[in-house]
Amino acid sequence: MEKKIAEIGEFGLIDRLRRLLDLEGCQPPGLSLGIGDDAALLQAQPGCQWAVTCDVLAEGRHYLSEYLTAFQLGKRAMAVNLSDIAAMGGQPRYALVALGLRGSTLVGDVENWYRGFAAALNPWDAAIVGGNMTQVDGSQFISITLMGEVPAGQALRRSGASPGQAILVTGYPGQAAAGLRLLQERGQDGGLEDHPLVQAYTSPMPRVGEGRAMAGDRVVSAAIDTSDGFLGDLGNLCAASGVGARLWAAQLPLSPALRAATAKWGEDPVRWFLGPSDDYELIVTCAPEQVEAAKRRIAGVNQAPVHQVGVITPERDCLEIEGESGLSRLLRARGWDHFTSRDKEI
Amino acid sequence: MEKKIAEIGEFGLIDRLRRLLDLEGCQPPGLSLGIGDDAALLQAQPGCQWAVTCDVLAEGRHYLSEYLTAFQLGKRAMAVNLSDIAAMGGQPRYALVALGLRGSTLVGDVENWYRGFAAALNPWDAAIVGGNMTQVDGSQFISITLMGEVPAGQALRRSGASPGQAILVTGYPGQAAAGLRLLQERGQDGGLEDHPLVQAYTSPMPRVGEGRAMAGDRVVSAAIDTSDGFLGDLGNLCAASGVGARLWAAQLPLSPALRAATAKWGEDPVRWFLGPSDDYELIVTCAPEQVEAAKRRIAGVNQAPVHQVGVITPERDCLEIEGESGLSRLLRARGWDHFTSRDKEI
Repeated sequence: MEKKIAEIGEFGLIDRLRRLLDLEGCQPPGLSLGIGDDAALLQAQPGCQWAVTCDVLAEGRHYLSEYLTAFQLGKRAMAVNLSDIAAMGGQPRYALVALGLRGSTLVGDVENWYRGFAAALNPWDAAIVGGNMTQVDGSQFISITLMGEVPAGQALRRSGASPGQAILVTGYPGQAAAGLRLLQERGQDGGLEDHPLVQAYTSPMPRVGEGRAMAGDRVVSAAIDTSDGFLGDLGNLCAASGVGARLWAAQLPLSPALRAATAKWGEDPVRWFLGPSDDYELIVTCAPEQVEAAKRRIAGVNQAPVHQVGVITPERDCLEIEGESGLSRLLRARGWDHFTSRDKEI
Repeated sequence: MEKKIAEIGEFGLIDRLRRLLDLEGCQPPGLSLGIGDDAALLQAQPGCQWAVTCDVLAEGRHYLSEYLTAFQLGKRAMAVNLSDIAAMGGQPRYALVALGLRGSTLVGDVENWYRGFAAALNPWDAAIVGGNMTQVDGSQFISITLMGEVPAGQALRRSGASPGQAILVTGYPGQAAAGLRLLQERGQDGGLEDHPLVQAYTSPMPRVGEGRAMAGDRVVSAAIDTSDGFLGDLGNLCAASGVGARLWAAQLPLSPALRAATAKWGEDPVRWFLGPSDDYELIVTCAPEQVEAAKRRIAGVNQAPVHQVGVITPERDCLEIEGESGLSRLLRARGWDHFTSRDKEI
């Protein structure tokens, strides 16, 4: 019979998680003191800045535990943060994890979250160095702060895009949202775990290596990750840069799996590409003569697919798409809003 | 009519909070990029390490909004983290704030939380550089990560206490718990806001200056803050150092207000001194011949009261108290456990 958290208590749980991380986590350079004191002690590599981000995943809102295993959930929660560090061109280093847990949750589930955290961090020599846990009666939550290093002055930012520059995107946005819909339609036991759309949802791979490869030289002028969906985050990049964007409908990388699924649903795959979707791809901009260099840099890491999907335009916050029927204005989407009705749409 | 968060949305709220921080927060040295990109960018002062901590305050568990104003709650939430940095001897610098909020919460309340955060950070030239917010249906929460700087190799730790050393404590532990009880008995409108015990609960002053004054030289051998209550955290310090402790009942700094309140309740003030209480004082140890030097260092900052309350003993994890009736063994308390029945006791 598996134990519940309430049976072993907070300190019992912390002891177990610490042992788990000792075995399955890694020891990043620069760490003087990890879990167990009032604070962790750590040091940047010489000449580096810190990129620091924090994200919360709340049960029922950002994830539904019936569609993700505990391990997948842990990996995904860390991926959300890794993706932010990737968008800055950073090397992930240290994570702090604050959890809100019900006493009735199985200890083994929390251990599997931590296995997921470690699985996401280990490839980057990054580790959990601290945290906090508290009991909740309602929805559980995972709040992660991730610190990454980036050589001083070389971080990628949202604000560097200029009119005439190319817009590139990695991977195939929209797949994760479509994967979630498949899971919702068929349930977890629908034998869908190997479906490429479901995989895109359950096991996103943040573009950390690709981001690092772009930091430092002047090939890429701006970068952002697609955590708010492609259009939402393209809008965020444009707002930060004071520009607009024109997309080419025919050039959007719509994956065969996304085309097949949306055809079955009688829906437009472009809408799924543009809308909220937990894909964690990168949108970057660069001068038109640098498109091939940028693509080589991105694809050089893990052969990540990368496509030019449009150009930056001068009219601030004007997002439009050029298709067979001409030019259409796209609604300015700032992204997934957790407090208005927008968060109920796809 | 005051607006609710659901009416202005996540991005509207973020815009308002950013403007508020621009006006009322400060700009710490080393910050290249604050709120608004995928991550904040920041740099340590040369020769410094980072001390990093994270703490969650959950509504109903760590605070009851009927006993704290929104401003007090914000200040307290930041104080919890400042106290951890204080216990390491660090200089607070950068905070990231993740919030779980109900859509029905008033925007003005969240703004007042932020005013409280800024009021706690401003004296230390520290600032909020990032965050995240998400909607919750049940209890709200505040999850804060705080980064502080400490000259490399000079941080205070829990693990340096040796047998024979003196145990010192700042301030008057137990007051905050007694203040909360007063509020619970009389309600917020009981005209208690100026009562010293209530003040101890509503407006704790973490010992940041005192911690910094102790870092770096070898006067103090170990330090911890009393966020888990005096006995719980003395136990944590002893466990980390592999030692025990003997307290002198007659030397415990029991404030006149605590004595008066517990006399009225017919309770032992020592129990309140030792038990869980949100006081955020520091427990430190030092060699017996350094007691006066340590006291001068601590009191030199803000005239903080500081008292020797006992000595470190060799027997690991053995906590005892010497009173009129001789020596009594104190139950090993690891501190406030959020998941077992212990968290229901005082």
